[in-house]
Amino acid sequence: MFDVLISEVGPRDGLQSVKRTMSTPDKQRWIDALVAAGIQEIEVGSFVSPKLLPQMADTAQIVRHALQYPGLTVMALVPNARGAQMAIDAGVHKVTLPVSASEAHSMANVRKTRQEMLEEIAKIAQLRDQQAPHIKIEAGISTAFGCTIQGEVTEDDVVWLAQAAIAAGADESGLSDTTGMANPAQVKRLFNKVRAVIGDKTGAAHMHNTRGLGLANCLAAYDAGVRTFDASLAGLGGCPYAPGASGNVVTEDLTFMFEAMGLSTGINLQALIEARKPLTEALPGEPLYGMTPEAGLPKGFIAATSLGGQR
Amino acid sequence: MFDVLISEVGPRDGLQSVKRTMSTPDKQRWIDALVAAGIQEIEVGSFVSPKLLPQMADTAQIVRHALQYPGLTVMALVPNARGAQMAIDAGVHKVTLPVSASEAHSMANVRKTRQEMLEEIAKIAQLRDQQAPHIKIEAGISTAFGCTIQGEVTEDDVVWLAQAAIAAGADESGLSDTTGMANPAQVKRLFNKVRAVIGDKTGAAHMHNTRGLGLANCLAAYDAGVRTFDASLAGLGGCPYAPGASGNVVTEDLTFMFEAMGLSTGINLQALIEARKPLTEALPGEPLYGMTPEAGLPKGFIAATSLGGQR
Repeated sequence: MFDVLISEVGPRDGLQSVKRTMSTPDKQRWIDALVAAGIQEIEVGSFVSPKLLPQMADTAQIVRHALQYPGLTVMALVPNARGAQMAIDAGVHKVTLPVSASEAHSMANVRKTRQEMLEEIAKIAQLRDQQAPHIKIEAGISTAFGCTIQGEVTEDDVVWLAQAAIAAGADESGLSDTTGMANPAQVKRLFNKVRAVIGDKTGAAHMHNTRGLGLANCLAAYDAGVRTFDASLAGLGGCPYAPGASGNVVTEDLTFMFEAMGLSTGINLQALIEARKPLTEALPGEPLYGMTPEAGLPKGFIAATSLGGQR
Repeated sequence: MFDVLISEVGPRDGLQSVKRTMSTPDKQRWIDALVAAGIQEIEVGSFVSPKLLPQMADTAQIVRHALQYPGLTVMALVPNARGAQMAIDAGVHKVTLPVSASEAHSMANVRKTRQEMLEEIAKIAQLRDQQAPHIKIEAGISTAFGCTIQGEVTEDDVVWLAQAAIAAGADESGLSDTTGMANPAQVKRLFNKVRAVIGDKTGAAHMHNTRGLGLANCLAAYDAGVRTFDASLAGLGGCPYAPGASGNVVTEDLTFMFEAMGLSTGINLQALIEARKPLTEALPGEPLYGMTPEAGLPKGFIAATSLGGQR
């Protein structure tokens, strides 16, 4: 195990925000480069209606490609039990289900109440128990830090939902700053509250960089005991609400931050930066974010991972 | 007093990195807009040779313009006692002197050893004591977190220099991440070490965003007790070593972070974002950074300052 796990969500969260559809061989090449850089977990796609998200139509194929890499955790997003069945059939190691803490966002996003989503988790857990008990189920509590539709989301609601998801059968509940509204004080406070209730079943911090606070929020989550962080190479998937503003936390900058702090990620930063190449070749002209790739690594930089970080 | 003080360095640190010279009336208009937004301290220019930095040739005029605002702390950078005399003559409230923790950088930047810079502080303190005892002297310990010329800078050297600067007559010693090499763990550790020795004479955190860690480093400095933060509107002054990478921490994003955390800055965020207008009008085409201006404030956002943050 390394000190922190950076879970790459670009092939799912990034690509679903890009209008163009990346071809299957291009996705495979990109995943190859991510794995070569030492990425240990990738959300490779989502099992949703191809009418809704044609970019994700080849997810089963991408899962099969990714499964060739021993040690790689292959994840997919599923919005419901139907998607979960497809994910199980494809052979994923882990599914993540978005569960909105905001009732208004839940209805707008998946046309289900929060209670109905909890029932969906129970159904997915049953499928998993019957067919593939090794598969992990993550509930990603979205709009955990605020909602553009509903406005404020109470912390009590988030803690309740994170706990209810575990009770329904999820293995872990993570917190997502879906709308880029989180601040470090809130992130630390809310993760502490959730951890106080569900302990080590607390999942990933999924932070956005909408207002530039992505890394600061990840740092705050780390301080609250979080060790898994979602991020997207080149910050792929600019926020639709904020032209010019990156959506996801940039994998390169997040990795640099942790490695510079002496926390091993298992990732080779130079190879990670090179993994931008297949991305730009596949999606020429797509805006890429990230300061570390522009600036390069500091003179004499020693990454924690290069010091034999595997502990 | 507000919870944190954001010291705007754009008119000095930003403009000196821009090749074009902003006209005197344009600088004045920009400073007017910054003051209107609630900025309480501005580094308005530097007293250096106009041959070296023609952008700063009108600093005495800019100081006089800024002095019309009651409550505004008018700062200028001075590289030596000669510059300090000019700053005193112009009527500044505060001077800041860059003192490199890296001997190699000190020689390259000001052609003086660290010991000679300490002697310069003593001379400046004497000028101040004789002519204008109310003026504050800040030593900005540059390359405190690493140096592109020398490589590593030991923490012992930084602590020694910060303390020696106070002993020589400086009122406070701040720490500058001149080269954008700092990480949050290092920032917290080093500020804690410095505070353990010079206590409340610990000055501002001057962080760069070269590798995207600017806000995370400011958060770490806050955790270590720092309450003054340098930042530059629109991150003006892209790092010359990193095309496309912003140099200074972006004032708008930093202000948003603190205000969202419930920490008052005295700054009106909307007015701050509007202060970009005189900047773009004066320097059309100059790349501007900052995510918060792109994304806008979150729905229902309540700034700490608007809650009557003055404590």
